[in-house]
Amino acid sequence: MRQPKLGLLTKSDLALFLDYYELTSAKPDFAYGKQATVTEEYFVRSVPFGSYLVATGLEQVIAFVFSIKFEEKDLGWLEATSTPDFRNGFLDFLKEFSFSGDIQAVPEGTIMFPREPMLSVTGPAIEVQILETYLLNVMNFQTLIATKTARMVDVAQDRTVVEFGARRAHGRDAALLAARASYLAGATGTSLVIGGKMWDIPYIGTIHHAFIQNRPSELQAFREYAECFPHNTILLVDTYDTLEGVRNACIVGHELKSRGFELQGIRLDSGNLLALSIAARKILDEAGLEGVKIFVSSDLDEYRIQELLKANAPIDGFGVGTRLATGANYNPLTREGGPSALPGVYKLVERVEDGKIIPKVKLSPGKVLLPFRKQVYRHYNRKGQFRQDTLARWDERVPDAESLLLPIIQQGQMVYDFPSLNESRSYCREQFRRLPKRYRRLTNASAYPVKLSPELVRIKRKTLRKR
Amino acid sequence: MRQPKLGLLTKSDLALFLDYYELTSAKPDFAYGKQATVTEEYFVRSVPFGSYLVATGLEQVIAFVFSIKFEEKDLGWLEATSTPDFRNGFLDFLKEFSFSGDIQAVPEGTIMFPREPMLSVTGPAIEVQILETYLLNVMNFQTLIATKTARMVDVAQDRTVVEFGARRAHGRDAALLAARASYLAGATGTSLVIGGKMWDIPYIGTIHHAFIQNRPSELQAFREYAECFPHNTILLVDTYDTLEGVRNACIVGHELKSRGFELQGIRLDSGNLLALSIAARKILDEAGLEGVKIFVSSDLDEYRIQELLKANAPIDGFGVGTRLATGANYNPLTREGGPSALPGVYKLVERVEDGKIIPKVKLSPGKVLLPFRKQVYRHYNRKGQFRQDTLARWDERVPDAESLLLPIIQQGQMVYDFPSLNESRSYCREQFRRLPKRYRRLTNASAYPVKLSPELVRIKRKTLRKR
Repeated sequence: MRQPKLGLLTKSDLALFLDYYELTSAKPDFAYGKQATVTEEYFVRSVPFGSYLVATGLEQVIAFVFSIKFEEKDLGWLEATSTPDFRNGFLDFLKEFSFSGDIQAVPEGTIMFPREPMLSVTGPAIEVQILETYLLNVMNFQTLIATKTARMVDVAQDRTVVEFGARRAHGRDAALLAARASYLAGATGTSLVIGGKMWDIPYIGTIHHAFIQNRPSELQAFREYAECFPHNTILLVDTYDTLEGVRNACIVGHELKSRGFELQGIRLDSGNLLALSIAARKILDEAGLEGVKIFVSSDLDEYRIQELLKANAPIDGFGVGTRLATGANYNPLTREGGPSALPGVYKLVERVEDGKIIPKVKLSPGKVLLPFRKQVYRHYNRKGQFRQDTLARWDERVPDAESLLLPIIQQGQMVYDFPSLNESRSYCREQFRRLPKRYRRLTNASAYPVKLSPELVRIKRKTLRKR
Repeated sequence: MRQPKLGLLTKSDLALFLDYYELTSAKPDFAYGKQATVTEEYFVRSVPFGSYLVATGLEQVIAFVFSIKFEEKDLGWLEATSTPDFRNGFLDFLKEFSFSGDIQAVPEGTIMFPREPMLSVTGPAIEVQILETYLLNVMNFQTLIATKTARMVDVAQDRTVVEFGARRAHGRDAALLAARASYLAGATGTSLVIGGKMWDIPYIGTIHHAFIQNRPSELQAFREYAECFPHNTILLVDTYDTLEGVRNACIVGHELKSRGFELQGIRLDSGNLLALSIAARKILDEAGLEGVKIFVSSDLDEYRIQELLKANAPIDGFGVGTRLATGANYNPLTREGGPSALPGVYKLVERVEDGKIIPKVKLSPGKVLLPFRKQVYRHYNRKGQFRQDTLARWDERVPDAESLLLPIIQQGQMVYDFPSLNESRSYCREQFRRLPKRYRRLTNASAYPVKLSPELVRIKRKTLRKR
């Protein structure tokens, strides 16, 4: 009998976490000795929603760079299975592979805009290129989730937003990374226990429907739960009839009170959340349970949260699942959408050969590139609010502005002290306080001004004229 | 300096891969000794696209069931960090946890329809419930990807469809599972090398743009690649000017011919793929390179593939990335979409107490459940084509029909011999040959008839009357 396969990736699998073309293109690079120094940049041409991005994922990229190790068994497997012929020294070259270049990036939680490099890699061509697949996978996903979460946290104002999406996230790692990225962008916590453990973040949960269905009555289910957790009772009230459920919660609320405890809250998980939250608040208040909070879940996203709060729904917290953990590119009000993916790319922008810097461009329709290794400079107004960014060449001076890309790895050595996740979260929240409201609107957000430096304007004109 | 964290899940993390409410609800179950036998079913209320689903993910679910082990360190961590109090024997209970129930499921690759259980679990309440989060995560994602892929493979007919999505998949595991699920549903292979290795499936790749940009000319880049892999050259022609690229490919095609080799193909990765493929075919044919194939990629999905082939685009194969690996719920022709997630659920349907079977329902608005453990019966017409399914109670007899749910685990023991991935793939392809065309249309597909058995009709009437 064949044993079923779990198929979890391990650290030693990561060297092969790449699209095959990274290797088939590397072999001739190796064979012809094309080990010039190049720079590739990670950026996003256009955002799926809103005007900004929350750069996230750097820590897992850097951990990967130091994990790459082509093992004997991997190379043997490649030799045996690759149709293009990988012999003649190339496999020995891979065996010795380690990253010797430089990586510069913006800190996690930095608010960025389309076309701005969030990360760049400089080094020998093969080393730089071979990072592509993994780097894109991790940066695209975590940045997507952090950006989506930031929009929800922004409209929810001071209410809690808890990530509930493990069951709909795309695989096991997505559930885990969504817990991280959403917390970094301001979520209160996650429902996923291993997410709480892995990232040392709050994990949160209440009751499921089966628990209530498994008892002779809803009231008995509520009583047994409250008996077990008198300090931490949040009751799920929609299994049968929601308002009847709220009234049952009131009974248990009073019973807890008489024992010196307080019912923490109720949760609505279906139906018209606006009407039900108003009716539930009224029932709770009339029962003298003004302190009991109302939490809601059920296909929520930033659009629904905003709609509920604009209508003054008396809601204290939101549990958001599918549309957060999949970064849903979908507006339920207009039913318009697109693929739920961040279309980030990693592109060659310059090459240094015999000490001479050669700008690199690609002229595929709709995919024209701005050449040269770049820095992003941010200008602030007198109140410290974001005013404008300038894209410039890496060594160009732009006065009165902050350089956003920092050195992370230099000549293969780590030179950056990673902040804790809580530090990155505070930094991200601080960034939002400095981002003017017109760039934060859910729909019709203004486009943030990203200007080119005089040098880049000149280069762009020249490049386009040449072709 | 803090070391960056890779954050890969390991097998020993999996016991904590659950939403916290599974544990907070289990503690009172444990405290009150509610260990009755229950059945929960996995099904999808409605499909995001089309009429059918390709059930996929069972193997990773079953491997998980046998992996669950709450380790000392996990329990210590829970005790230290959980706000609800988990002491009083519950942690000791978890320490001894292992699954002792039954699992029945349809084989991977089975074509299923909304509301049909694809998997069900029967056993002690806590054991059954605790599987929920992981089971939903894996089944929802792999079934989404297999279903999306099946639609593409169906419209692509006998042309190759290669999964290219690692860079846009939602995290590292999603890339790996997308390679598996798409191959099972008929894709030719994956671009992800570790996907090829993990699942023993074809991995495929060509050249990237940086390879071409890194050389003084496109022609020189093509020559160096062909020199390195004379047997396996597919040239990427869109870096600068696509048709110029095709002409350069012809030069290299002739050079290969003169050495006794054949250029395999060219790849178009941007622009108007219909016009460019027609023009490229003409250039190749006029150069006497009729055998050179044309592969295309660039934001493809089933709608674009169908559109191209309906217009007679001379395309031999498709590389599909983002919209396959994220299961994009998006129609580019109408710009309508929804969240890219399969909304599969896992619900309590019956409970056995003192030998008496108690049907379980939930009456939340829009989420009404059909009670009792069920079997799905499939009826075929004389040509072996799918005619109709019948949902019936587990022990109800339905004549002249095939039972789709098979026993996988019984009393905690595996009783099912997992087919290989290639066997599941063949089975899936065979299923498609038996699914009439009206259910396979991309838009306006007919709804497949799923009837209720007489017994279930009676139960449904009674349940709804009671409330």
